[in-house]
Amino acid sequence: MNIAIDAMGGDHAPEAVIKGTLKAIENFPDLHITLIGNEKKIKPYLSSSDRIHMINTEEVISGEDEPVRAVRRKKDASMVLMAKEVAEGRCNACISAGNTGALMASGLFIVGRIDGIERPALAPTLPTIDGKGFLLLDVGANADAKSSHLLQYAYMGAIYSEKVRGIKNPRVGLLNIGTESKKGNELTRQAYELLSNAKLNFIGNIEARELMNGVCDVAVTDGFTGNMVLKTIEGTASSVFKMVKEVLMSNFKTKMAAAVIKSDLGKLKSKMDYSEYGGASLFGLKAPVVKAHGSSDELAFFHAIRQTRDMVMGEVPLKIAEAVKDISK
Amino acid sequence: MNIAIDAMGGDHAPEAVIKGTLKAIENFPDLHITLIGNEKKIKPYLSSSDRIHMINTEEVISGEDEPVRAVRRKKDASMVLMAKEVAEGRCNACISAGNTGALMASGLFIVGRIDGIERPALAPTLPTIDGKGFLLLDVGANADAKSSHLLQYAYMGAIYSEKVRGIKNPRVGLLNIGTESKKGNELTRQAYELLSNAKLNFIGNIEARELMNGVCDVAVTDGFTGNMVLKTIEGTASSVFKMVKEVLMSNFKTKMAAAVIKSDLGKLKSKMDYSEYGGASLFGLKAPVVKAHGSSDELAFFHAIRQTRDMVMGEVPLKIAEAVKDISK
Repeated sequence: MNIAIDAMGGDHAPEAVIKGTLKAIENFPDLHITLIGNEKKIKPYLSSSDRIHMINTEEVISGEDEPVRAVRRKKDASMVLMAKEVAEGRCNACISAGNTGALMASGLFIVGRIDGIERPALAPTLPTIDGKGFLLLDVGANADAKSSHLLQYAYMGAIYSEKVRGIKNPRVGLLNIGTESKKGNELTRQAYELLSNAKLNFIGNIEARELMNGVCDVAVTDGFTGNMVLKTIEGTASSVFKMVKEVLMSNFKTKMAAAVIKSDLGKLKSKMDYSEYGGASLFGLKAPVVKAHGSSDELAFFHAIRQTRDMVMGEVPLKIAEAVKDISK
Repeated sequence: MNIAIDAMGGDHAPEAVIKGTLKAIENFPDLHITLIGNEKKIKPYLSSSDRIHMINTEEVISGEDEPVRAVRRKKDASMVLMAKEVAEGRCNACISAGNTGALMASGLFIVGRIDGIERPALAPTLPTIDGKGFLLLDVGANADAKSSHLLQYAYMGAIYSEKVRGIKNPRVGLLNIGTESKKGNELTRQAYELLSNAKLNFIGNIEARELMNGVCDVAVTDGFTGNMVLKTIEGTASSVFKMVKEVLMSNFKTKMAAAVIKSDLGKLKSKMDYSEYGGASLFGLKAPVVKAHGSSDELAFFHAIRQTRDMVMGEVPLKIAEAVKDISK
């Protein structure tokens, strides 16, 4: 198996990317990696391996670049070359921690959509209290979604949960503003109908309030709402932690207490940090395209590689293609 | 000033409602209250006051009732009679902690919409780290919104923030999935245009991640998204607190530390509890209709009355009516 990796994407690139890659090479004897990026910057961190292949390029897509334009114009950017490795059959999948929009554009324009898939979906795994997590999709690949898109998201999420996360008969919920079947806006009411008749373990509407309690394995929603929920979870968790920290630092007594619980609270914070669950997958493309979190460290990047490898081994794109044919029958 | 209060709404009714009412009567010498509910259940908590008037009824709308049907059929329900007190001019405003949907229906069908307002909006004040809070609207009065609705929400929210919350030139933000002007779905892109040309202190798109950092005073969004964000904030905050508590209770050492910081953490939790900011106002109706939180205790209910009184004194519905006329010019 050969995975293409954009060595220049993310806040801690290329160091975290290279170290995560080396860890993956060590752990998975079947794995070959093609690293794309600035050789001069990569070399200092790279120990030689006959399973790592390098493609040198100095062009990079930054976080500030307008995604679609950047992918079209920066033809030698590490991310673009990475996607080409997949499109031209030299690699089975690819990973980048760079510009999310540009990665989605690279996936769509270079790797390409599976026949029958109307819109790709971006799907991170988010934390739950019990540590199992749930898949949320779409979180922003497609801001104006139709109910037929949501139906495809549900199938794609269920297949991924089975093949990669090892969940049998995953519980699929429709994110909505109430649990009753008639609740919501036009989009969710239509999607409810479609999902009720799908060959899925559809458990009905779920409320955002319950997500972290692990009410479902796959939460389906349009990209606008999903992005909003994702960022609200991030923002609220980080605000609450900030406020707890303020309390702990407020006086001598609390500082003493803080010293005692500091390491446990740190563990909790990392449990909330979804980079531990790997990257966000872009579903509906001909090959796995994975977005590692921008702040990925070595370990988070390693997890993203592990997850991408699982997607290749589970033949997720093939299973999605089969399911789509089946829906359209 | 006369405010009608549904004595039977909320988890702690009628006790919390009556106690909150008595506290308000004590604090505001200009205040008269009409209490509507089951006299037998109310009497035990009520001390006599010549500024409290009672209307006895045994019918109640419960949390399980289908809102619109309940308001139409239960003609003697405490909530329906409460709204009638306003509609027929005997009271200036009304408050209930009962069924939110039924209160919205009572407001719309009995109190009535202001001429020119396309859709009413439900607007709670949510917590920020600095304790100042921000107004979010709509959180679910209207799940399928148009951009013209969002423009009216913005004006209504700005007027309320000025008149009731005392914020000069309130900063109005459009909740969106990115800060750039072209970001979002069709609805937000259209709303951005309208808001840019409005006589408002429009600060552009804001991301859900930043809400609790106090980036704006008024966050405008459609009812579906607003409800989703509201419930995600609630769910995430409560999950994080649950997890912190688990850490604190995990062993002897942490339990000792917990004992020290318990009261400070408790204060933090109540800072996060938006019932401290009063109830959620229903904007766009001919008189103030306020939804106190279902779990309101005596103090939360008192705050809801204080807020409602401020809305009457600030002539919020009149100012909204004037603004609407101005927009449509």
